[in-house]
Amino acid sequence: MIIEGKNPVKELLSSGATVEKVYVLKTQDPQLGYIAAKAAEKKIKVICADKAVLDKLSVSGRHQGALAVTTEFKYATPAEILAAAKSKGKPHFILILDGIEDPHNLGAIIRVAECAGVDGIIIGKHRASGVTDAAVKVSAGASAHVLIARVTNVNDTIRELKEEFINVIAADAGGEPIYGSRLTGDLALVIGGEGEGVHALTKKLCDKTVSLPMFGKVNSLNASVACGAAIYEAVRQRS
Amino acid sequence: MIIEGKNPVKELLSSGATVEKVYVLKTQDPQLGYIAAKAAEKKIKVICADKAVLDKLSVSGRHQGALAVTTEFKYATPAEILAAAKSKGKPHFILILDGIEDPHNLGAIIRVAECAGVDGIIIGKHRASGVTDAAVKVSAGASAHVLIARVTNVNDTIRELKEEFINVIAADAGGEPIYGSRLTGDLALVIGGEGEGVHALTKKLCDKTVSLPMFGKVNSLNASVACGAAIYEAVRQRS
Repeated sequence: MIIEGKNPVKELLSSGATVEKVYVLKTQDPQLGYIAAKAAEKKIKVICADKAVLDKLSVSGRHQGALAVTTEFKYATPAEILAAAKSKGKPHFILILDGIEDPHNLGAIIRVAECAGVDGIIIGKHRASGVTDAAVKVSAGASAHVLIARVTNVNDTIRELKEEFINVIAADAGGEPIYGSRLTGDLALVIGGEGEGVHALTKKLCDKTVSLPMFGKVNSLNASVACGAAIYEAVRQRS
Repeated sequence: MIIEGKNPVKELLSSGATVEKVYVLKTQDPQLGYIAAKAAEKKIKVICADKAVLDKLSVSGRHQGALAVTTEFKYATPAEILAAAKSKGKPHFILILDGIEDPHNLGAIIRVAECAGVDGIIIGKHRASGVTDAAVKVSAGASAHVLIARVTNVNDTIRELKEEFINVIAADAGGEPIYGSRLTGDLALVIGGEGEGVHALTKKLCDKTVSLPMFGKVNSLNASVACGAAIYEAVRQRS
């Protein structure tokens, strides 16, 4: 897996992830110098290369002179997320993504979830983006700091969480107003995909559905923006 | 200006904007049929074309068989936004963007601002994205339903708004906690750009700065996600 850009590479180096090698552009940029020094300190192979080499390795075309090769994204399991949540001694706060297909949306969601301090993210395997290079890049380093589990069937995981007495709440259109709904306590927040939102069967399994108020004519939000607003309402109530 | 995709073209046709012509793919898709009928009803020229024609006109490469040619984006003035706000008989809610450079972020912000019912959006002319084709596309039709003004100097506009006794609040890092801050009454919310956030000089002009709480290691949000969470906190307080 290729991580690109100054900040993502810096974040990666400080994350404890296994980095195979780091490419930096042959230039006098102090930030690139910092990256090279940090990598060398960690005994990671540093390659000073020409722009053509970096351009060729780059997936996004925007490497900013820094590029790291790391092992494939290491998914956690739902059990590991639960154990991590329990070890914090605070009410659980888990995010479940039901069919986010766009890696950019996934990356932005990972980023806001990490900032909001969620215990972990559970994503489905089918018709959903995995943690790809693009998602890692958009997450701006956050993917290295939050547990992400990938499950075959999101509904089975929801059933398991409910057995642990975790309140499973869908954030989707047509629910009760989010601002009057309790989002405290042990919580798993379910966010739907770009097209259909939360699937009908999944929604049925949830304890309830909550919705952001809409006052416009378009009345549909980008998945990561909606997710951010819903996550931060939970943060507000829980703090 | 080219508007692409089934939903954006449908939204455009129902927005009252001046549409010069509509291209639909020669196929049996009922949604494309609806678009063609709607355009014809409005006496807009409809061209049934092959995929190659649409592909050539497409900017994003994702036209979904529907594409409209419209006149350039028509900006409003800050005075028009104020007048529109006044006519609603509710406290003003204006959004000011201080250096959003990525048209995708701008589009996502226009989308969430329209859903949240803001009176208008004010953007700067320098080092900032205008309402480009890409921004219109990402806004999913919202750009046709919200007043957007483009000003030479955002700081001058902030001074003018303050003379109207509008509370100007920056949403940026390092401020007081947003959840303890009053966002009711006549409000202009200032959102900073992707790199630097709200400029120091602009921040000084604002009545105060409010921040979303951050619990992670990365602790920086995508501009449109942060904007969405801040706007929706204002919506919560104001409803």
